[in-house]
Amino acid sequence: MNEVIKTIQNHRSIRKFEDKLLSDEQIKTIVESAQAASTSSYVQAYSIIGVKDPDKKKKLAELAGGQDYVAENGHFFVFCADLYRHQLLSEKHEQDTSQVLESTEKFMVAVIDATLAAQNAVLAAESMGLGAVYIGGLRNNLDEVCKLLKTPPLVLPLFGVAVGYPAQMPDQKQRLPFQHIYHEDEYEQNKVNYMDQLEKYDEDISQYYEQRTNGKRKDTWTGQMAGLLARPSRMYMKEFVEGKGLNKR
Amino acid sequence: MNEVIKTIQNHRSIRKFEDKLLSDEQIKTIVESAQAASTSSYVQAYSIIGVKDPDKKKKLAELAGGQDYVAENGHFFVFCADLYRHQLLSEKHEQDTSQVLESTEKFMVAVIDATLAAQNAVLAAESMGLGAVYIGGLRNNLDEVCKLLKTPPLVLPLFGVAVGYPAQMPDQKQRLPFQHIYHEDEYEQNKVNYMDQLEKYDEDISQYYEQRTNGKRKDTWTGQMAGLLARPSRMYMKEFVEGKGLNKR
Repeated sequence: MNEVIKTIQNHRSIRKFEDKLLSDEQIKTIVESAQAASTSSYVQAYSIIGVKDPDKKKKLAELAGGQDYVAENGHFFVFCADLYRHQLLSEKHEQDTSQVLESTEKFMVAVIDATLAAQNAVLAAESMGLGAVYIGGLRNNLDEVCKLLKTPPLVLPLFGVAVGYPAQMPDQKQRLPFQHIYHEDEYEQNKVNYMDQLEKYDEDISQYYEQRTNGKRKDTWTGQMAGLLARPSRMYMKEFVEGKGLNKR
Repeated sequence: MNEVIKTIQNHRSIRKFEDKLLSDEQIKTIVESAQAASTSSYVQAYSIIGVKDPDKKKKLAELAGGQDYVAENGHFFVFCADLYRHQLLSEKHEQDTSQVLESTEKFMVAVIDATLAAQNAVLAAESMGLGAVYIGGLRNNLDEVCKLLKTPPLVLPLFGVAVGYPAQMPDQKQRLPFQHIYHEDEYEQNKVNYMDQLEKYDEDISQYYEQRTNGKRKDTWTGQMAGLLARPSRMYMKEFVEGKGLNKR
């Protein structure tokens, strides 16, 4: 196993960091690594906002639902889908691109571009001995996040990434079985097989929780997910995203 | 610069491969690397379809707009946003999750999950001496792609990734200036600065094209983008995605 695959497969989300900031050089290496990712038709439809201001970090931690590590880390990055520069360059070249920029297709392009960049950033950080965690909690209250970061139209913060010197080494969470995630030539057509794979996975996960908690926690992955997904969450998103001029048509 | 950052920053899209297939072991390492990526609240909302059947690969190459390298490569992966298993597990646990699964928020989660996994897959492949290219062209005709791969509801193919032994070493494409992608504490508020950065970038890109083509190609990034974005493309996407039960509310 080479160093890259080791780094990739050694990933765990780090939620406790030493009290030590990243240097500007480290930040630059991380951002340049993000930028090296593929981008759909060269559009580069994303931006990254690095948050240094401790007050802003505290505010973001609150907005994300009281996650301390959003404030207490080595650096906090916010990855945004961004078609704002494309609106400005359209004006500059007197091209009407408004319908295209408002399309679901271009929204997907921007989300995908931002996410490819983010995963490069996380791996670059991890390769430097740093730890990282994605913060989807920013989407709890995007209106406040946008105001705090003063984002223009056509810019949508997607998630944060807290990076820093790790002060914990949590267990890795076992993933869905290979056969369940990976299909060959067509999607699994046999529903019995498909559900059996989930059944087997539930047994493994349940055993893991029991062992880790001395039998106290009884839980399965499917049970956990069914509970999670039964609770409406961030149902304002469609309207909010459209309000930013994205995903409208 | 460590091996991981070297691999990340050495990325270029490879569109010509040797006539040599990946081994099942290589495919497994790539998929397991994909699975090691972070996933929002552990939902694992994606699937990967590996296409080996040469006829299917040919068909996909046509659907993607006649891109030969979709058929001629070491292996072809299709990354899908996938909330289908979550629908089945909700039925199993008798939970009504339909509104949540249909939300724009969960659509974003699934797109982000699939994309994080894909970037890990690409880097794992590159670290093994393989090359890769993302194929957004699959979105030209997703209805046909879905039929070919027999995907169920709540599954949306996002892009392909062609992987193989590289038979070319193209130049890297210069990215937007660091200062333009990376903002500190708030999004750039000075529109003049912002446009100046694009102006300077245009000069660099234009110089690059001129040098590479002995003065024949005169082009700027903003000009290229304005032209691209003025042409409506994949405007069927919103309706199609909603038809799959995603991004509806």
